[in-house]
Amino acid sequence: MERVGIIAKTHTPGIREILHDLHAWLVERHIQALFERETAKCIEHSTDVHSKAELPALTDLLIVLGGDGTLLSAARLVGERRVPILGVNLGQLGFLSEITLDEMYLALEQVLHNEFTITPRLLLKASVTRDEERLAEYSALNDVVINKSALARIIDLQTCINGQYVTTYKADGLIIATTTGSTAYNLSAGGPIVHPDMHALILTPICPHTLTNRPIVIPDTSQIEISLKSANEDVFLTLDGQVGLALRYRDVVHIRSAHYMIQFVRPTERNYFDVLRTKLKWGER
Amino acid sequence: MERVGIIAKTHTPGIREILHDLHAWLVERHIQALFERETAKCIEHSTDVHSKAELPALTDLLIVLGGDGTLLSAARLVGERRVPILGVNLGQLGFLSEITLDEMYLALEQVLHNEFTITPRLLLKASVTRDEERLAEYSALNDVVINKSALARIIDLQTCINGQYVTTYKADGLIIATTTGSTAYNLSAGGPIVHPDMHALILTPICPHTLTNRPIVIPDTSQIEISLKSANEDVFLTLDGQVGLALRYRDVVHIRSAHYMIQFVRPTERNYFDVLRTKLKWGER
Amino acid sequence: MERVGIIAKTHTPGIREILHDLHAWLVERHIQALFERETAKCIEHSTDVHSKAELPALTDLLIVLGGDGTLLSAARLVGERRVPILGVNLGQLGFLSEITLDEMYLALEQVLHNEFTITPRLLLKASVTRDEERLAEYSALNDVVINKSALARIIDLQTCINGQYVTTYKADGLIIATTTGSTAYNLSAGGPIVHPDMHALILTPICPHTLTNRPIVIPDTSQIEISLKSANEDVFLTLDGQVGLALRYRDVVHIRSAHYMIQFVRPTERNYFDVLRTKLKWGER
Amino acid sequence: MERVGIIAKTHTPGIREILHDLHAWLVERHIQALFERETAKCIEHSTDVHSKAELPALTDLLIVLGGDGTLLSAARLVGERRVPILGVNLGQLGFLSEITLDEMYLALEQVLHNEFTITPRLLLKASVTRDEERLAEYSALNDVVINKSALARIIDLQTCINGQYVTTYKADGLIIATTTGSTAYNLSAGGPIVHPDMHALILTPICPHTLTNRPIVIPDTSQIEISLKSANEDVFLTLDGQVGLALRYRDVVHIRSAHYMIQFVRPTERNYFDVLRTKLKWGER
Repeated sequence: MERVGIIAKTHTPGIREILHDLHAWLVERHIQALFERETAKCIEHSTDVHSKAELPALTDLLIVLGGDGTLLSAARLVGERRVPILGVNLGQLGFLSEITLDEMYLALEQVLHNEFTITPRLLLKASVTRDEERLAEYSALNDVVINKSALARIIDLQTCINGQYVTTYKADGLIIATTTGSTAYNLSAGGPIVHPDMHALILTPICPHTLTNRPIVIPDTSQIEISLKSANEDVFLTLDGQVGLALRYRDVVHIRSAHYMIQFVRPTERNYFDVLRTKLKWGER
Repeated sequence: MERVGIIAKTHTPGIREILHDLHAWLVERHIQALFERETAKCIEHSTDVHSKAELPALTDLLIVLGGDGTLLSAARLVGERRVPILGVNLGQLGFLSEITLDEMYLALEQVLHNEFTITPRLLLKASVTRDEERLAEYSALNDVVINKSALARIIDLQTCINGQYVTTYKADGLIIATTTGSTAYNLSAGGPIVHPDMHALILTPICPHTLTNRPIVIPDTSQIEISLKSANEDVFLTLDGQVGLALRYRDVVHIRSAHYMIQFVRPTERNYFDVLRTKLKWGER
Repeated sequence: MERVGIIAKTHTPGIREILHDLHAWLVERHIQALFERETAKCIEHSTDVHSKAELPALTDLLIVLGGDGTLLSAARLVGERRVPILGVNLGQLGFLSEITLDEMYLALEQVLHNEFTITPRLLLKASVTRDEERLAEYSALNDVVINKSALARIIDLQTCINGQYVTTYKADGLIIATTTGSTAYNLSAGGPIVHPDMHALILTPICPHTLTNRPIVIPDTSQIEISLKSANEDVFLTLDGQVGLALRYRDVVHIRSAHYMIQFVRPTERNYFDVLRTKLKWGER
Repeated sequence: MERVGIIAKTHTPGIREILHDLHAWLVERHIQALFERETAKCIEHSTDVHSKAELPALTDLLIVLGGDGTLLSAARLVGERRVPILGVNLGQLGFLSEITLDEMYLALEQVLHNEFTITPRLLLKASVTRDEERLAEYSALNDVVINKSALARIIDLQTCINGQYVTTYKADGLIIATTTGSTAYNLSAGGPIVHPDMHALILTPICPHTLTNRPIVIPDTSQIEISLKSANEDVFLTLDGQVGLALRYRDVVHIRSAHYMIQFVRPTERNYFDVLRTKLKWGER
């Protein structure tokens, strides 16, 4: 580990001290610290400043300080470069950012001594075809969501998996979640928890008109094709709830897994069910 | 019954013949037919043409031909005037428009001979307060919905009932449904079916972050107050999924029952559970 | 308040001290303490000992120390006698036993000075007809449940409300809950929370085969009739999860509200939504 | 295909003619028909009669005429012998018995000409350990269910996956379903639909006390261990809702996949989503 990239949620109280200490800790160990442009503004005399997009190419590890949101947007940028990400949550325990600030230096020591676990997480790719032309492609770590606007009526989403017709959902929208995203929006919409070791995607309709349109778990090798069959309604495609595109009547959204995965550094002592119990308040043993 | 108002969903195939026959039927019985402006365009030589808003004041009965949507917007217009509404569905059986086209003339005969049931349905009133100033008031027969736009993040809705704090919902939105609306959007969002004889309102959060935020049934005399606690997010108030208003940070929505009810003419031979079984495909006896 | 009946969950650790102190507190105020037979074994020199069934007729107030279970069985015994019940929970906050041990003496002071609220709670009556003969009648404060045994297959429960056919549920069972019971078994089976001020009953099928068989809220004046249409299966009727009867093929269960209500003494400073927030872990304001 | 075993649900009306025709069809093609003992009683002059347990060892194909129940019990018997099963439903379309009586001869022709698809389906193995001694082992194709009796209170089921503690479910019971069983009891209890190509098991609690105890999808290589932590309650282990064992306090149920799969003959022209749409009444395209 020679060069470490640092991205932080800069609005967090106390972020200046945290970054200063982290910088000092790295310098002391002769590790070069590269700062993301916004993050760099929180630290004095920072020389190595780069855009978010440049960092993955220049570093051996990416430390992301913030919540699951900060982590999601960093993860989408890493893309095919296999830089591992260490997510440190500055607030409450996240499903992705499992390492607390208190545990950060211990985790970094473990990384230095090669004593850590890498959890690969699947990335979804979503592209949109309009009038037989392909528009830009997007990435998502949690979920691809097709959602109507607040004023729109119920929308029709014709759905095919590997060329087989599934159904035409009449609903507020449709979530295509990864196992990572199974505990996010998917869970609020009535979808199941899916263990991260599963090679799975989840199709969960949002407030479906047909009550028997229940969530479906399918292989992550599935090619999903969703066609918007409602005219004159405001409908949007969103990725991890952050990036979006307005969809039009007859647009087709193609969703499939990326051929690479995002590498997360995980603390070895905490297992998946420990996190579930804490986050979902299942109570003590 | 001397003067009958007629409102139709004019895009329906065959609507010209239906209106022509209905007109002839009424004329034959010396009943005056008053047509809504758009509806009048589908009939020749129509003389009595009025706006939707005028009709309730001029008629003893309102015949509404269309689906539940057409009926909802007519019902909101009737307001305090106690004109009964006869809803005729031109497509499939509706929860509100229970009379089919085949049954219309039989139902009209029953109305002529005073052999019919009136079902009163509760109307909701929703008003918005912004910076201590009260904006316009709205009506809804099915539901008042506060909903985030597709691109917005989860919103915070602080909710009080009769001045008692309930919770601050973190959700996509919140439905306040009447018993009439219990089988509409409320059902898709996980809310219960509530019998129309109940004096009830239903609070159903849409995709709540807190999984234990389950639907709550409360008395229809409740004063509900919902404050938008999220800044910088697109949030809308909608009434029966049709009319809307953009809400701002700190807007307060007040919801209560109107002091009058909407009068629906109902076929006596069909009961509530018959309709439920058909619409929800519960199968045969 | 001259004579107070005392019923306790006698297995609770420290119950002897609690009862001793309560006895002393009452004696000091010249109030006669009458103990239920089992409870009396936990206290020395207790002279006024009676069976559970006798206590309501002899007392002005019933203090029940334990959990919701102890309270439910006491409440069913009170029946038509309008003795108010003060439920003190010895463990965690209950939906019914809202008063903690710390608050008991303050609540008793309030009762002494007539500064308290009485919440009447509806009682259900369930009777079984077999071969046109009526078997014994039962009471329930939370719920009447018809449930198959673990080894039985899905059962058929033909259900009528006020003589109108609803449906024939194919399910593990059927819950008929009061508003009091809405936060108990009903909630686990997917039913809604219903405010105690509602005059409502809730029909919630348990694991229904037909996914659209959603919970229905009906008026508490409804006469419910459920016929067991499955032969050769072990099926039971239970009341508040405590008392039971084996049902046979073609047995008919009749359920209706009692013509009287159970009177609970409630602390004035805690409202219904406060209890919901605490019990369902909705988080802080 | 030289020797075919035949098992039928013998109570079905018209079963004698069906079996007679099937027998004649096989004889005509010089295929030997072996009948299960009960089934043989419905056919005259049947010579090759065997017990259900013997048939798999003697035949190249097993034709099972009946519903999903008949098929489930036949499948559990086949066990490690890789005899393919052709399930013919005599009533309505089943999730497993997808072939109708009309399609049977076409399907048999396809089998004769090696033009068919084999769908392997996972089998679960459940064994019980009591006082450190292992009791008998069971098989299940749909689900292993631990369920309380109708009169029992809520039970505590301490659950571990691969040695990691998950939670102690407080519930009516717990379903461990295969993908095959995902559309059976699991669906009624709120679990997701899981595509048969997934290597998955589903843990779905029945009416859990903790509302956030949502269904979890885990790899089918998982070792599941469930310990009954409630004393003095009637609790049963059931396999596909058919076979059962009374469990005792501290019994441990171990569940894992069998190392072999059951081979089902499937019609090539009908895909999984076609069956879902029909069975769940999702409506037409």
